[in-house]
Amino acid sequence: MNKIFISAGLALTLGAGYSLTAFSQVKPEVMVKQRQSAMALQGKYFGPLALMAQGKAPFKADVVAYNASLLDALSRMPWDGFDASTKDVKSAALPAVFADTAKFKDAQDQFHGAVGKLVAASKGSDEGATKAAIGALGKTCGGCHDNFRQKP
Amino acid sequence: MNKIFISAGLALTLGAGYSLTAFSQVKPEVMVKQRQSAMALQGKYFGPLALMAQGKAPFKADVVAYNASLLDALSRMPWDGFDASTKDVKSAALPAVFADTAKFKDAQDQFHGAVGKLVAASKGSDEGATKAAIGALGKTCGGCHDNFRQKP
Repeated sequence: MNKIFISAGLALTLGAGYSLTAFSQVKPEVMVKQRQSAMALQGKYFGPLALMAQGKAPFKADVVAYNASLLDALSRMPWDGFDASTKDVKSAALPAVFADTAKFKDAQDQFHGAVGKLVAASKGSDEGATKAAIGALGKTCGGCHDNFRQKP
Repeated sequence: MNKIFISAGLALTLGAGYSLTAFSQVKPEVMVKQRQSAMALQGKYFGPLALMAQGKAPFKADVVAYNASLLDALSRMPWDGFDASTKDVKSAALPAVFADTAKFKDAQDQFHGAVGKLVAASKGSDEGATKAAIGALGKTCGGCHDNFRQKP
């Protein structure tokens, strides 16, 4: 018998969307919420860096390095949430996400690559190179949004 | 002159809640959304591990190690969102979050510690130890929710 080690309330929270026998079958609405959560957090950790790169906030190397490390993790999180099962769930995702999966994957790869370059740059001491890497990363965010996200 | 390197739409998205002169001043509503996003993603990556530890899903060591690494990043993300400025924003946070900050901080530290132990265990090959670390982590989630979160 398995020891119940989480509270009933938490089990409900964590269990939302997870089938007990096939936990990969998450409800479409839950997937959308999760991918939106990843995007919201990318905004949290990228936003300040964009301001630094634009000279609108003081450059702080330690903040850039810390945020870049978190962006590295966050950049892995949204994509499985764009499952075909979510196609009809209301969100800002354009039909192209599901119609042109190769191009969407390419946009993800460019984003991944740019995050990796920012992580590398943020470990050095070249402020200009780090700001350039922030700018390059911002371009990959914007490029993907332009093609795959409804305009706000 | 700064080169504009992100699209206007993205700038709006990323700029939401960030003051141009003091980016640490994020709107309370945005902070709440961000911390809820971190919790939602903790659920995404912890949920399957809880099922594995309870024997309700097949144990997959590579999934545990991967999810643990993402949980390590996610476990750093919610806490600055429980800023005093968010006290009056509607959420599931109980008043104790803001009234007993020392106890809340202690609960965060216990969670952090348990994530670290799971990361370490997931790098080994002891399935029992890894499942125990998952269970211990679940206890810290539940312990904090019991004291600081409204019951669902």
